[in-house]
Amino acid sequence: MNKAVVLTSGGMDSLVTAAIANQQYDIAMLHLNYGQKTENRELKAFNDIANHYGVSHKLVVNLNYLSEIGGSSLTDYKIKISDADLNYKGIPSSYVPFRNANILSIAVSWAEVIGANKVFIGAVEEDSSGYPDCREIFYDAFNKVIELGTKPETRIEIVTPIIHFKKSEIVNKGMELHVPFELSWSCYRNTDIACGTCDSCALRLRGFQLAGLEDPLIYEKKPDYTHN
Amino acid sequence: MNKAVVLTSGGMDSLVTAAIANQQYDIAMLHLNYGQKTENRELKAFNDIANHYGVSHKLVVNLNYLSEIGGSSLTDYKIKISDADLNYKGIPSSYVPFRNANILSIAVSWAEVIGANKVFIGAVEEDSSGYPDCREIFYDAFNKVIELGTKPETRIEIVTPIIHFKKSEIVNKGMELHVPFELSWSCYRNTDIACGTCDSCALRLRGFQLAGLEDPLIYEKKPDYTHN
Repeated sequence: MNKAVVLTSGGMDSLVTAAIANQQYDIAMLHLNYGQKTENRELKAFNDIANHYGVSHKLVVNLNYLSEIGGSSLTDYKIKISDADLNYKGIPSSYVPFRNANILSIAVSWAEVIGANKVFIGAVEEDSSGYPDCREIFYDAFNKVIELGTKPETRIEIVTPIIHFKKSEIVNKGMELHVPFELSWSCYRNTDIACGTCDSCALRLRGFQLAGLEDPLIYEKKPDYTHN
Repeated sequence: MNKAVVLTSGGMDSLVTAAIANQQYDIAMLHLNYGQKTENRELKAFNDIANHYGVSHKLVVNLNYLSEIGGSSLTDYKIKISDADLNYKGIPSSYVPFRNANILSIAVSWAEVIGANKVFIGAVEEDSSGYPDCREIFYDAFNKVIELGTKPETRIEIVTPIIHFKKSEIVNKGMELHVPFELSWSCYRNTDIACGTCDSCALRLRGFQLAGLEDPLIYEKKPDYTHN
């Protein structure tokens, strides 16, 4: 079985991505702490998910410099996590500058050393928060950088299996693959009970609501997002 | 004056690059510790160079994960630093997997937050150790990733002013700009007296020898590399 590195934040999207990768590959899981406010809760979700899939090949990397650099509501305590506005078209304040390039670079360094030839990431383009580094063209360009920046014999490709899924399709795919949704964590704001009102909770809840399914997580509030 | 981030390892190439950037830009200096064996010596060189140019905007980032990931003689104590073979055509054992993509990603994250629109890196293509991530095509591809992975209004470009210089031309350029060569550090092996025999020392010494100039650093050995 070929090896693949799976970037696993601990959220719903990376959980479903891990389940997809696990069907075809011997998976190694990479998690990044970058000083985000919910760092500890996400790390717990990562470990729970790795245990669920019996993955022993794990790497947790601390990117504390991303919070030192700042510029995002996820890492900067001076910037508040805003309530979701699912119709907002700009780049949200939760955007961490060029975060995914940092994350992919680490994943590729690790993949080159352990001999993995795929790096899975659960990026979502359409039904997403509007981050520029979650678009397919970004990953296509990054694949070119990998080809040019690694050893000639190295073949590593970024794979984005859910990039064109709507959140409700991700929920359905997860159900089909019997993923443990209850182990995942998506909330940007809290670490005990998901708030239900930040961008990330709103997108997740809307996904479940549109799929007509119940999210097993407990939320502080569960607004109806089906009309947003 | 526009801002630029300068990647400053503390070696000769980054020193000359910083001097070039300093002519046109308000420079901010970024240094990376990645668990390389000469980490402390390189950090001292970085601080000495920043002081020389009166740069107060500095960022030092620890990428310990690169040594945890391993795969290079620079970071892995199980792999010996080999003596230079300037005619070797393969990828040398000092190659740190995909290192420059990791480094550039951090530089771009920082540049986006501080409003710098250039990132200078002292990569050298022809007269180099043969690292794949030191080639111009790699940087061209990375510029595309930056364009696609940052905010629409962000304009950041990687600049490689010495990429087509031979080492002797870098020495001459440095002399022309009165750079403090004595503050820089290039040796992969030692932290007190430069060995003179690793790849990095050999390339530097050959540069000075072909330029007909004296390197102010003290070396353990100073072989004649002009015929290699």
